Amino acid sequence: MRAAVMRDWQLRVDDIDMPAPGTGQVLTRVLSCGICGSDLHLLEHGEESRRLSDELAADDPDAGPGMTMFDPAGDTVMGHEFCCEVVDTGPGVEHLAVGDVVVSMPVVFDDTGVHGIGFSNIYPGGYADHMVLNELLATRVPDGLPHRMAAMTEPLAVGVHAVAKSGIATGDSALVIGLGPVGLACIASLKMLGIGPIVGADFSPARRRLAEHLGCDEVVDPAVERPVEAWRRIGGTTSLVVFEAVGVPGMIEHTMRMAPKGSRILIVGACMQEDRIHPMVGIGKELSLQFALGYEPHEFAAALDAISTERVDLAPLITGIVDIDGIPTAFADLGNPEAHAKILVEPSS
Amino acid sequence: MRAAVMRDWQLRVDDIDMPAPGTGQVLTRVLSCGICGSDLHLLEHGEESRRLSDELAADDPDAGPGMTMFDPAGDTVMGHEFCCEVVDTGPGVEHLAVGDVVVSMPVVFDDTGVHGIGFSNIYPGGYADHMVLNELLATRVPDGLPHRMAAMTEPLAVGVHAVAKSGIATGDSALVIGLGPVGLACIASLKMLGIGPIVGADFSPARRRLAEHLGCDEVVDPAVERPVEAWRRIGGTTSLVVFEAVGVPGMIEHTMRMAPKGSRILIVGACMQEDRIHPMVGIGKELSLQFALGYEPHEFAAALDAISTERVDLAPLITGIVDIDGIPTAFADLGNPEAHAKILVEPSS
Repeated sequence: MRAAVMRDWQLRVDDIDMPAPGTGQVLTRVLSCGICGSDLHLLEHGEESRRLSDELAADDPDAGPGMTMFDPAGDTVMGHEFCCEVVDTGPGVEHLAVGDVVVSMPVVFDDTGVHGIGFSNIYPGGYADHMVLNELLATRVPDGLPHRMAAMTEPLAVGVHAVAKSGIATGDSALVIGLGPVGLACIASLKMLGIGPIVGADFSPARRRLAEHLGCDEVVDPAVERPVEAWRRIGGTTSLVVFEAVGVPGMIEHTMRMAPKGSRILIVGACMQEDRIHPMVGIGKELSLQFALGYEPHEFAAALDAISTERVDLAPLITGIVDIDGIPTAFADLGNPEAHAKILVEPSS
Repeated sequence: MRAAVMRDWQLRVDDIDMPAPGTGQVLTRVLSCGICGSDLHLLEHGEESRRLSDELAADDPDAGPGMTMFDPAGDTVMGHEFCCEVVDTGPGVEHLAVGDVVVSMPVVFDDTGVHGIGFSNIYPGGYADHMVLNELLATRVPDGLPHRMAAMTEPLAVGVHAVAKSGIATGDSALVIGLGPVGLACIASLKMLGIGPIVGADFSPARRRLAEHLGCDEVVDPAVERPVEAWRRIGGTTSLVVFEAVGVPGMIEHTMRMAPKGSRILIVGACMQEDRIHPMVGIGKELSLQFALGYEPHEFAAALDAISTERVDLAPLITGIVDIDGIPTAFADLGNPEAHAKILVEPSS
């Protein structure tokens, strides 16, 4: 089958073997799979990040076995934001049938362990014609929900989780720094909780428009106005939770410097490189930094429910559709925030 | 009067003018004043830290006026952990009289603003024969409480505050990294709250003994056993709050690496230099970092109350008494954790 393959931290399109569904697993064909910024990061900084993971594992013998790690010298097919159609069922599958359209948390398990979909040499992710899922983790998509919208479940779940992790509540306001798909997912999730005012900051006018579409109360170009000043200008005085959704070196310190005294900062952007901070900035303002990763199963389900019941409209975030051969170009195109927010891979498009 | 004076980030003993009490102020003679690790840090890293403060102030025009800043080219008398005796009263003082023994949060106000005692060119701190306090902020020390114990109020308050800020509760356990006066104050405060088990980690046997004296359930030499392993060895399984009380570059990342998944980390050690972290360590384990500084008035009062009612015995922490001429040597001696925890300055000793 056709797939965009990562090997030695390089992306190339190639023909690889079709996976076979084991016990309790289904073979699916990929209908839509979003390209995630973290896949771009992984390609660029994966080697450095891998060295760190190895160090951490050596440091902490008590950590126990987590997910199996892919060998970067082998083939890895990324893509963890997918909506698929079941085309074959393995032994013991009882509740899924050929033709079912499903989403799943991007994890597969078998008797060798737990494998991250998109981070495995064994199980290809959604940048391929086909993938294997566990019946137990797959959720049938509600009738009538377009597969493109269903593929947005995973990125929305990241926002649902970050917002829950922040402990933000009525009476707090929110500032979201960086209006890429992660920042936008935070805004959508904050809006569903009824939090306000929400201020969004990004240099890109197109992304600021997307934030407004999702109900962001005020958007600001940081080149023109300091984001915290914009928040004060619209009457912000109550406690502020700041979401750092950029994830490049320097952003944590930058966010700490702008945050008002006593703020909570949610680190939801994934900076894979070493970073520098001045602890005294945090100490002087008694800031708290909460790092967030992924989501819980109930948050993934809540994201699918929000999309299918149209409590959030993520359609304008989808700015491009490519087939598998178009993936390397799409990775490059995503560098332009004016042109793109989310590009979906549709193998049969 | 005699004083240890900081000028151009150098400490020297000199004769300076005696301060005069203004309206609502009292003149006191210093009975005991603890030497704080942050004063050692200030002397060593103050210049770098000052550059950062100036940058932050320029960054944030909305921050508003805080405390007045001392001019490092002028004279500053440090010393903010003091117990004093009133020797004269200024105009309008109604509730304090000559002979009263008092402690105070280390802040003085007058019609020019708010001044940090120990960080002011105008108001000398406790490394001097005399100092001026506001009647409104001074608290009379309970009868019979030795002034040496009363001088421990301020450092204990730092622990009371850090523990409160952590939100630690029954069922959580605590790991304190660094058993200097700040770490020991955290242990004393955790113990008073009934938190357990408490694990303390320090390379120094003398400091580990002090931690045990304060009720630390398990002490560990990090050269021999990983602190988190010690916590697991004694049955630690519930949620862990880690107190980073060392405050040198590298300790935040070190603490993030040792912390179990989902831990809260209280940053109570004050690292004044730039530091480096790998955000992915925090992201992978969804850690939270809470920075803590100082204490609230009620926490200062609670610390004095705990000492005077003998709910905590800090006497063994006092490892040395010096007069003013002995301060520069004491600053150097505090570099040896085997010999010293807290050295008190007693001008008339």
